[in-house]
Amino acid sequence: MPRYALKIDYDGGPFQGWQRQAAGQPSVQATVEAALARLEPGPHTIAAAGRTDTGVHGTGQVATVDLARDWSPFRLSEALNWHMKPAPVAVIDAARVPDDFHARFSATERRYLFRLVARRAPVTHDRGRVWQVLNPLDLAAMQAGAAHLVGLHDFTTFRSTMCQAKSPVKTLDEITITEHPYAGGVEYRFVLRARSFLHNQVRSIVGTLERVGAGGWSPDQVGEALAARDRAACGPVCPPQGLYLTGVGYPVDPFADRPAR
Amino acid sequence: MPRYALKIDYDGGPFQGWQRQAAGQPSVQATVEAALARLEPGPHTIAAAGRTDTGVHGTGQVATVDLARDWSPFRLSEALNWHMKPAPVAVIDAARVPDDFHARFSATERRYLFRLVARRAPVTHDRGRVWQVLNPLDLAAMQAGAAHLVGLHDFTTFRSTMCQAKSPVKTLDEITITEHPYAGGVEYRFVLRARSFLHNQVRSIVGTLERVGAGGWSPDQVGEALAARDRAACGPVCPPQGLYLTGVGYPVDPFADRPAR
Repeated sequence: MPRYALKIDYDGGPFQGWQRQAAGQPSVQATVEAALARLEPGPHTIAAAGRTDTGVHGTGQVATVDLARDWSPFRLSEALNWHMKPAPVAVIDAARVPDDFHARFSATERRYLFRLVARRAPVTHDRGRVWQVLNPLDLAAMQAGAAHLVGLHDFTTFRSTMCQAKSPVKTLDEITITEHPYAGGVEYRFVLRARSFLHNQVRSIVGTLERVGAGGWSPDQVGEALAARDRAACGPVCPPQGLYLTGVGYPVDPFADRPAR
Repeated sequence: MPRYALKIDYDGGPFQGWQRQAAGQPSVQATVEAALARLEPGPHTIAAAGRTDTGVHGTGQVATVDLARDWSPFRLSEALNWHMKPAPVAVIDAARVPDDFHARFSATERRYLFRLVARRAPVTHDRGRVWQVLNPLDLAAMQAGAAHLVGLHDFTTFRSTMCQAKSPVKTLDEITITEHPYAGGVEYRFVLRARSFLHNQVRSIVGTLERVGAGGWSPDQVGEALAARDRAACGPVCPPQGLYLTGVGYPVDPFADRPAR
């Protein structure tokens, strides 16, 4: 059976996360699988690089699926997009991949974006798409706090007690925090990059760094919390709606010979 | 009665435009006026710099209102935002202004942004917030076409037959078109700036330039259409949902002594 990689973009708002749930609970995975069943008799089970939580968005999720027919990748994405309407899920790229390529196990990097907006007035256009706080934050302090987290560490403090990963030791390759104009306020964008993340790791980190930006924590306290290797030392976990899985890296990019657009 | 200027941010999606309509038709103006009536007995009539059409958004609309009480601008915006919930309308700044300041008649500049996304897959996050076309456009051709429109011209070709302005002669100070990364596609942003605009002028211009970008028109045909001074020579008027009123200029910025955020 030919195997395909799909690059998937979705608004996480209406879904109970990526992963298929009990019947009647909407998930992104079930939405894609239902569309696949319109193309070829199912059931279909797709594997994804990141199993995003309820309310978390994707702009560059990657999933693999085996199909019986030999589809042109373009036709496959067009047909899936047709059958997924009007759900806010779209296949933005598709490629034929080797049988040993696996969206999750072959991945060597995940990239996340977190959007945090600070303004007094309620957000209008970006409701459900950003985390809003009321007061501006100290960017330099957040950057100094984040610096403690880059590199190889035991991230026990920053993972959910529900996390099923075998080890809490991970290498965080990047946390970049930047400031952007926003009507009536300011937007902070956090870009995080690692081979893999623990459950709730990004939201635990951003929630903690927000405390630093608000002046409640000093930057050095982030390092102390990390060294504690104790979930209780973590700052508050921030809400999911500002989080986007923006991309997944592989040793060979399955979409490389396709136009970026 | 003290006069206040309000800077207003709204998602135009649920509204029949800015202007108050017959009862039961939602409008941004009526939403703000209803909130004002919760603060002081009405009716209130507010004047705005730009009477945006159905589906058009605002991130920097300005309106003026006269109130009986002496409100602190901060308290006024907080109270209005409270009473407007959950409508996607927010007061992002407020200021006491002189009695001869009028949001519409004192304005010396309006700034608009138009967001156009080109990609095959349906947009997810930005539904109702951008105009989507399927294929990438020729940026340089659109820029060359736009160059014909900058300056003092008779814009009869680019205004609605319903336009009530006395004269079709306007000075367009700026059209800047830029390209931005967008998941699975590309985004084009059009920034337009003028003392004032004719009815449907921005959407007539963007719709025409999209034809140029798609190769249907040559850049020089934009100049010919302008010279024709004939509404029938215009390209297709593009849909409203990509359009944002981003700012209004005044001889003295009423919000200048307030923090940008």
